[in-house]
Amino acid sequence: MRTRLTEHLNINYPVIQAPMAFAAGGALASAVSRAGGLGLIGGGYGDENWIDEQFTIARETKIGCGFITWVLREKPDLLQSVLSRRPAAIFLSFGDPAPYADIIHAAGALLICQVQTLKDAKHAIGIGADIVVAQGSEAGGHGEGRSTLPLVPEIADEIARTTPNTLLCAAGGIADGRGIVAALALGADGVVIGTRFWASSEAIVHPNFLAQAVRATGDETIRTQIADVVRGLDWPERYNCRVVRNAFIRRWNGAENQLSSELPEQTKLWHQSQESGDTNIATAIVGEAIGLINDVPDAASILNSLMTRAESVRTLL
Amino acid sequence: MRTRLTEHLNINYPVIQAPMAFAAGGALASAVSRAGGLGLIGGGYGDENWIDEQFTIARETKIGCGFITWVLREKPDLLQSVLSRRPAAIFLSFGDPAPYADIIHAAGALLICQVQTLKDAKHAIGIGADIVVAQGSEAGGHGEGRSTLPLVPEIADEIARTTPNTLLCAAGGIADGRGIVAALALGADGVVIGTRFWASSEAIVHPNFLAQAVRATGDETIRTQIADVVRGLDWPERYNCRVVRNAFIRRWNGAENQLSSELPEQTKLWHQSQESGDTNIATAIVGEAIGLINDVPDAASILNSLMTRAESVRTLL
Repeated sequence: MRTRLTEHLNINYPVIQAPMAFAAGGALASAVSRAGGLGLIGGGYGDENWIDEQFTIARETKIGCGFITWVLREKPDLLQSVLSRRPAAIFLSFGDPAPYADIIHAAGALLICQVQTLKDAKHAIGIGADIVVAQGSEAGGHGEGRSTLPLVPEIADEIARTTPNTLLCAAGGIADGRGIVAALALGADGVVIGTRFWASSEAIVHPNFLAQAVRATGDETIRTQIADVVRGLDWPERYNCRVVRNAFIRRWNGAENQLSSELPEQTKLWHQSQESGDTNIATAIVGEAIGLINDVPDAASILNSLMTRAESVRTLL
Repeated sequence: MRTRLTEHLNINYPVIQAPMAFAAGGALASAVSRAGGLGLIGGGYGDENWIDEQFTIARETKIGCGFITWVLREKPDLLQSVLSRRPAAIFLSFGDPAPYADIIHAAGALLICQVQTLKDAKHAIGIGADIVVAQGSEAGGHGEGRSTLPLVPEIADEIARTTPNTLLCAAGGIADGRGIVAALALGADGVVIGTRFWASSEAIVHPNFLAQAVRATGDETIRTQIADVVRGLDWPERYNCRVVRNAFIRRWNGAENQLSSELPEQTKLWHQSQESGDTNIATAIVGEAIGLINDVPDAASILNSLMTRAESVRTLL
């Protein structure tokens, strides 16, 4: 399945693995790249030692790295340090990518900008993003309110009008070959897949959260600020985080101020639960597409299944 | 473009026009059916005289009628009265359709159940819905939180496991041929399209709201309860209504209790604005896909464009 994305990145499949903070390390990223997609380390909140270890694990495999954009402002040396590892691409989401575009391009890396609105897509196009990722609300982890299905073609139309060489990927809600073909029909050149690779043997996830998530339907996920409030993370208000709704989320959702007043005890409890795998308190950070996922194979098997299914869906249309 | 839906309904195109309350009358429904889809009168809140007029306008064209399910409980004779007009289908959304399944089938009409969650899809399948409509949050008007892209394949899998003869349509976010092909790729047998037909010459919409909506991008719509609170409508709490964000919505969103305390003056103001076309107060009830819409043609031209584009998208995949 060749698209403009596979041509441009010189990869076999139009699939980019989402740089999920904490979960996507060097093992996952390199496995996805070796299998024919583009794997990305989840640089997330910018723990430089951890990121360095993950690049070492990935060895010479062609991979990229993702960051939460607003974090880069607080860590001015981080980006340059990661660029010295010669990543194929830097993936920025949640904040203004403008200050980082030149330095990324100067280092020979591609700039991938994930956006959640048409407005931010226009901005990303304007600052020279090589790839715009249209991320819908159904995605796991952080995001906003618009949905993938109408957001992708609206941005595709904008790109066609203004900068037809900019590439477009769809993110959010895609976990099998049906979603890949749907994304291509909507005008995307490829897809960004998170949750499906989160539930892989290479992802860094406690088995209890994997078991919790694989059991869940898509109905059981929710966008909430609880996972950020309890961790004391300073996210801009427009973003929230999709997780599996568990006892802790049910208890505190809508009572964010009260939860804030019970930090740091609740923070300690959450981190302990993440370590120990207590799914009543900490919870799986996954998207609605978890309802399409029933197993935890290795990343190469996942990519293979994705593409086999996509080919058969396309043939039947 | 033949699918199980076109075969089962004996129509030319796998397109059902959403029964938009107030906007979808007999002119729109009959135009869609004559052009090769299935048109539906928006029975909505159950104004029997208005519904009767619309059936008269539609004459002998094969059309259906939609209702807000929880309204039927309060109007026990309404459904039977509409069934006496021999509609091809009854489309129920927002409430439990179980009490009405037998009477609809006994009258020889198809039962179309629109759902917003996997859980409600299972219930609709269980009570014998002929067609399940998976409606995502991106849809205009009332709905809930799940998105079309992951909801459709999750329900498709459920149908395949349990009742493979049940048909499935996708609703929410579909306004051109790209969305139709995407929906089929996701496992739907057809689509339900609202907003695209709302912006048609046959829809019953003040031209000011048409102009307001056609100018808007998808970023400018919002799910809110303000449109229901101001109209004094007794909607179950789980549902809210996607509209174009205007000055009135910005003023009151998040201040629902205060708005309630200013009824009925605000209600009167809203209704006057709907009549006069004051888009600063009343607002267009449309989905995110409004960002894909730039014109207001007649319904037959819309359906023709939808299918021409869908064919070309399919060919290019």
